[in-house]
Amino acid sequence: MTKTRLEAFSDAVIAIIITIMVLELKIPHGTDWEKDIVPLIPAFISYIASFVGLGIYWGNHHHLIHTIKEVSSGIMWANLHLLFWLSLVPFATGWMGENHFEKNTVAAYALISDLCGIAYYILLMVIKNCNQGNATLLHLIKRQSKKGTLSCIAYTLAIPAAFIHPAISGGLIVLVALSWLIPDKEIERTIKG
Amino acid sequence: MTKTRLEAFSDAVIAIIITIMVLELKIPHGTDWEKDIVPLIPAFISYIASFVGLGIYWGNHHHLIHTIKEVSSGIMWANLHLLFWLSLVPFATGWMGENHFEKNTVAAYALISDLCGIAYYILLMVIKNCNQGNATLLHLIKRQSKKGTLSCIAYTLAIPAAFIHPAISGGLIVLVALSWLIPDKEIERTIKG
Amino acid sequence: MTKTRLEAFSDAVIAIIITIMVLELKIPHGTDWEKDIVPLIPAFISYIASFVGLGIYWGNHHHLIHTIKEVSSGIMWANLHLLFWLSLVPFATGWMGENHFEKNTVAAYALISDLCGIAYYILLMVIKNCNQGNATLLHLIKRQSKKGTLSCIAYTLAIPAAFIHPAISGGLIVLVALSWLIPDKEIERTIKG
Amino acid sequence: MTKTRLEAFSDAVIAIIITIMVLELKIPHGTDWEKDIVPLIPAFISYIASFVGLGIYWGNHHHLIHTIKEVSSGIMWANLHLLFWLSLVPFATGWMGENHFEKNTVAAYALISDLCGIAYYILLMVIKNCNQGNATLLHLIKRQSKKGTLSCIAYTLAIPAAFIHPAISGGLIVLVALSWLIPDKEIERTIKG
Repeated sequence: MTKTRLEAFSDAVIAIIITIMVLELKIPHGTDWEKDIVPLIPAFISYIASFVGLGIYWGNHHHLIHTIKEVSSGIMWANLHLLFWLSLVPFATGWMGENHFEKNTVAAYALISDLCGIAYYILLMVIKNCNQGNATLLHLIKRQSKKGTLSCIAYTLAIPAAFIHPAISGGLIVLVALSWLIPDKEIERTIKG
Repeated sequence: MTKTRLEAFSDAVIAIIITIMVLELKIPHGTDWEKDIVPLIPAFISYIASFVGLGIYWGNHHHLIHTIKEVSSGIMWANLHLLFWLSLVPFATGWMGENHFEKNTVAAYALISDLCGIAYYILLMVIKNCNQGNATLLHLIKRQSKKGTLSCIAYTLAIPAAFIHPAISGGLIVLVALSWLIPDKEIERTIKG
Repeated sequence: MTKTRLEAFSDAVIAIIITIMVLELKIPHGTDWEKDIVPLIPAFISYIASFVGLGIYWGNHHHLIHTIKEVSSGIMWANLHLLFWLSLVPFATGWMGENHFEKNTVAAYALISDLCGIAYYILLMVIKNCNQGNATLLHLIKRQSKKGTLSCIAYTLAIPAAFIHPAISGGLIVLVALSWLIPDKEIERTIKG
Repeated sequence: MTKTRLEAFSDAVIAIIITIMVLELKIPHGTDWEKDIVPLIPAFISYIASFVGLGIYWGNHHHLIHTIKEVSSGIMWANLHLLFWLSLVPFATGWMGENHFEKNTVAAYALISDLCGIAYYILLMVIKNCNQGNATLLHLIKRQSKKGTLSCIAYTLAIPAAFIHPAISGGLIVLVALSWLIPDKEIERTIKG
């Protein structure tokens, strides 16, 4: 029961975050393609990046909570901690998009991404301590925490990299997304088996 | 279980999209009917059109996911892809409504509608490949993809048509909506049978 | 299954409407009680009224859908039609509150309330036609449609009344709310029995 | 069934409140850390405080509703009453954050917190009267109402304290949060036992 409600609450929060992000795509006052829509392209690209990123979190979170047996209050708080950092993604996305990938804003975006990644890692560790003896879950956590560590390293590098050139930062962030988008055969086998 | 969560997440996102759209109906500062409310009529008409359109997507999506047996990660991503384009409907609605159906904004609205239609079609194809041997589902997909193809053709025509006259575009969009509103006896029989 | 999803979707939409309404309570720039908070009182009163009103709809809707057996596509559309008018409540609330109960805004609020009431009545009738032979439901619909008719009459009177004095209109709206707030012993007995 | 829907509706509303709060973190127009991001720190701290506070309410509410057996219309209204005051938290948070903890805004924040606490206490009492003979629930209510009374006293003191110095008020509010964050062994044992 508790697990169902944790899932439902997390899903609702992620669904709201992913959707209110579109409110940061400010409707232009004019109707000219070049003057009004073209300057929105960076905001639009940021939106796509964050939408995909949040989609990945939703999918992974789904697999993770699905294999949990017991929910402690530690898991509840580690989960809320993750949702907290995810809730700042629309802010970082909007700031970066409106300012056309200015270096400070890209660094902030990488920082928020990094903190989300760390929060996810903490959630993995708390769940691991709490659910010993659940082999499928432990295997899933092992895979996700390995990938998660690499993602956090990439995000951490992306913060200073933004000050050299925002594109390096952006490249690192896209790379992390791609590494999660490629279906992980081993995880799928773990879940099914 | 996975299917239930896919349904719940999609429902939540569509419910949020359909509801935050009302935030684009900006409250006028004055209190005069003619000066403050009458200019809102185009925004209001756009709102009705999008509300009905999203309602149709919700209904069809409902029937579709309801008859699914297996959920692959391909289905999950095709579904998120659909939700992405649907999430841009409030933006297109607001831009068109605020600018009183100016031709560029109508073309943009037709474009977003088209992309939603294409995303739905892709979802249908991904589900089809993944759920062979489910006769009811395959029949439902056949019906929906036929109607869906016609809708996409109409939307594609509506994009250039906006530059001739926005009303032609609007007529095509309304026509598509009507074709989905008329209850499809064959689909209803398929679902019940 | 379908009924559960209709309930979940309606609940989500009503929950979002009731909550985004608070976004119309614009945060004042200054920090003075008299200059910044006191002028917000009308907006705050409007917010309370609409919160209670939407709460009543949620409760009644809950009882209604709970006793349904079969969901047709007619019910789905009558339900979406109700959600459409409910979604305009935040707009009417904000306009009335920001303009300190100016007569035009009160008339608009009464009009939207009226349309919500009529949409609920239509939903009752569609459900009735579709669920013959369900005695509990028919009894519930009989009670709710009697009360609903009286409410719609009061709302209809409240529209022109706003032009005599907004307070008469407000009084009628409050009266309708009170009539629904008083627990209906007969309905409670029907549901339990 | 009714209990599930009460849970789902409350969860949805709390999830929306906690998430739309981020919309009050206004995206700065410039891209300078010192000039644009540093002034946002008070808003950010307010956001953290309210996020944690709402998280606590969600957790406690969860435990409470979970142990309920019967839902009366009294419980439904006491619950809506709680959600009403919780829905004003984003407003109080935004006002306090944007005005850098000015004394009036801190007093307002303490007032809203107090009203949320009182509403929770009322909900506890209504549930208690309605669910006699449910020992686990009564024990849980006893613990929560004791802690709740102390919280309300602290919040009530925090209102005038803001006019002496906002930091005293803030300290009291943080203290209340900490008292709920520390896992209550006795409550956990009650729920498990």
